Amino acid sequence: MPIITLTTDFGTRDHFAASMKGVILSIAPKATIVDITHEIAPFAIVEAAFTISEAWRWFPKKSIHVAVVDPGVGSARRPILVEAGGHYFIGPDNGIFSPIFSRDAKARIRHLKAIKYFSKETSQTFHGRDVFAPVAAHLAAGIRPVSLGPLIVDAVRSNADQPTRTGTRTWSGTVLKVDRFGNLITNFHIAEFPDLIRRPIYILAGIHQVDYLVRSYAEATPGEAAAIIGSSGYLEVVVNQDSAAKFLGCGVGAPIELRIV
Amino acid sequence: MPIITLTTDFGTRDHFAASMKGVILSIAPKATIVDITHEIAPFAIVEAAFTISEAWRWFPKKSIHVAVVDPGVGSARRPILVEAGGHYFIGPDNGIFSPIFSRDAKARIRHLKAIKYFSKETSQTFHGRDVFAPVAAHLAAGIRPVSLGPLIVDAVRSNADQPTRTGTRTWSGTVLKVDRFGNLITNFHIAEFPDLIRRPIYILAGIHQVDYLVRSYAEATPGEAAAIIGSSGYLEVVVNQDSAAKFLGCGVGAPIELRIV
Amino acid sequence: MPIITLTTDFGTRDHFAASMKGVILSIAPKATIVDITHEIAPFAIVEAAFTISEAWRWFPKKSIHVAVVDPGVGSARRPILVEAGGHYFIGPDNGIFSPIFSRDAKARIRHLKAIKYFSKETSQTFHGRDVFAPVAAHLAAGIRPVSLGPLIVDAVRSNADQPTRTGTRTWSGTVLKVDRFGNLITNFHIAEFPDLIRRPIYILAGIHQVDYLVRSYAEATPGEAAAIIGSSGYLEVVVNQDSAAKFLGCGVGAPIELRIV
Repeated sequence: MPIITLTTDFGTRDHFAASMKGVILSIAPKATIVDITHEIAPFAIVEAAFTISEAWRWFPKKSIHVAVVDPGVGSARRPILVEAGGHYFIGPDNGIFSPIFSRDAKARIRHLKAIKYFSKETSQTFHGRDVFAPVAAHLAAGIRPVSLGPLIVDAVRSNADQPTRTGTRTWSGTVLKVDRFGNLITNFHIAEFPDLIRRPIYILAGIHQVDYLVRSYAEATPGEAAAIIGSSGYLEVVVNQDSAAKFLGCGVGAPIELRIV
Repeated sequence: MPIITLTTDFGTRDHFAASMKGVILSIAPKATIVDITHEIAPFAIVEAAFTISEAWRWFPKKSIHVAVVDPGVGSARRPILVEAGGHYFIGPDNGIFSPIFSRDAKARIRHLKAIKYFSKETSQTFHGRDVFAPVAAHLAAGIRPVSLGPLIVDAVRSNADQPTRTGTRTWSGTVLKVDRFGNLITNFHIAEFPDLIRRPIYILAGIHQVDYLVRSYAEATPGEAAAIIGSSGYLEVVVNQDSAAKFLGCGVGAPIELRIV
Repeated sequence: MPIITLTTDFGTRDHFAASMKGVILSIAPKATIVDITHEIAPFAIVEAAFTISEAWRWFPKKSIHVAVVDPGVGSARRPILVEAGGHYFIGPDNGIFSPIFSRDAKARIRHLKAIKYFSKETSQTFHGRDVFAPVAAHLAAGIRPVSLGPLIVDAVRSNADQPTRTGTRTWSGTVLKVDRFGNLITNFHIAEFPDLIRRPIYILAGIHQVDYLVRSYAEATPGEAAAIIGSSGYLEVVVNQDSAAKFLGCGVGAPIELRIV
């Protein structure tokens, strides 16, 4: 039986996430449910999109990833199913899966219209429980995607932050995310900037310049900011055993200037 | 194998919740364990009672719901098993299941006296691990309720907050809970107040009057308080993409005045 | 299929813990994964060691306990497998399992050298995902410990805090941990201090003297500090339904003086 993962902004103190799990297990008793996180900041679609796009590839093929950060619940925004990379993604059509289908020319997206796979009484306020959980469970239990709704081509694409070139050897980027350790994850990816590990680099983060690339956190001099290619391939600015976010006074959205010489 | 859910005030940083899971899996290796929450405020029986009463119905029949918010652990308070609505509930006799058995005339309640289903060495401080987890696991593994202890009729009933009538068309209620999004969940339920969606209403929350009923959060004007019937059927006071609790300065227990005209 | 438990300092907001679960389920689809906690304070090896040592014994034999609090990731510190008490423990060689193997003369420790059981591309920054999770999953799937690496005898032992004798009847100890309820868990264990429950005791915690031993939290007079032998066998200083840490102004590492008369 496939795996169903959950990514929401529901927190873990209320009954919301558990209600979704109850619905799933009522329809697909043998599903393996894995929480990616319920701690996305309320309504933070971009944070959710980043977190899912980092997590999904580590799960087995055919896994079903449900994401519910859904400020538009009850409005006209569509519920969708994305098939990409051999995995399934179910959630609102608000850009939350945009990083996944934007990079996959073979991605197929369906508008979830088959209300017979929704809960019988569908609230206007909790589609995680009444739409996304039951559809995911029916998919896990063997219902085929084609039965869930028609293909669409106009799903919402987010303008994910991409670095912009500002000179021959300079780019302007930003901090995508600050992780638990205070590491600043930037939007410079090794796949697009292979010179990051081949040539000297200079990074301006806040008022600090960092020109010191290390291969592991432990290699960095304690008390000094260093750059590293993190486990997801993004350039990070870090401080060994300390929070770079606090040390440099930078948070999500802070500008990051890069020079490769 | 049935599902065992857990609701506690243990948090997720200490080893407490995990110890309960280890005990359960030692006795019933195939049990599916689902966390409802471990983030109930310490000793907050009423919050736990509300959370369980919102979550349990979404799980399959025969699920076993263990709740441990237990300031009286080690005292004379009894451990109980409640059978209601086709589900099982295991925890201390302190009112934590009162919303469930109070509404079910067919509910049966047992005093868990069969200590052979407890852990061999039962501490006086951690009945979650030493009493409730092993009893739940034995029940999941096939032990019948009748073997766990005798029926009782004097289980503790909490005085759950009910609205009181204050005039021909006015009621005085309260905020039962503030959820993750800052929505104020009141104790006015659509089942008891069907006029909430049929007639004009006026709500006084703190010093703010709200007379604006919406069907979905997205329908509410940003920056203005609105009323909504939430996914559990309770009247909520909300602010679109913001915290009504902060906006109105109201928390759990705040008075809510309702007028239906 | 054995159980795999996880103890990390990754938090639950980022994708880190979920990525480990995806890797495990890709290799061992039937593994039962249980979170002990992901809320260890960043880099707090001693806290993690305490938490695991309290939790592991409640799980079935052959369980695999993965711990990742790993400030030295990417440096020369070794990845290890500990076999002790009929359980397996996988993590960095930084003292995190020291409380477990130090008390077990039969413990066997292996240096995880068989890189064919690591992920194909092993990052220098996330061995939880690239080394410890896949090795745990292969062990769960049937690979024998001998195939994972050679035995070693020089694993890092932490200088876990032990009480020191300061007089005929006096000892100086410390606060090992403050739990969710604010209880102060000291390093005086009933196994080493059986007189704790046989003779009058006097405890000095901060500037407060406590000479009042109770058997359950409920037995303590509200608003007064009391001593108790907690569910793990350690002497605790507690306040009934309140936080002893706040009440006494003591935290982790605070000195605790004990006199047994």
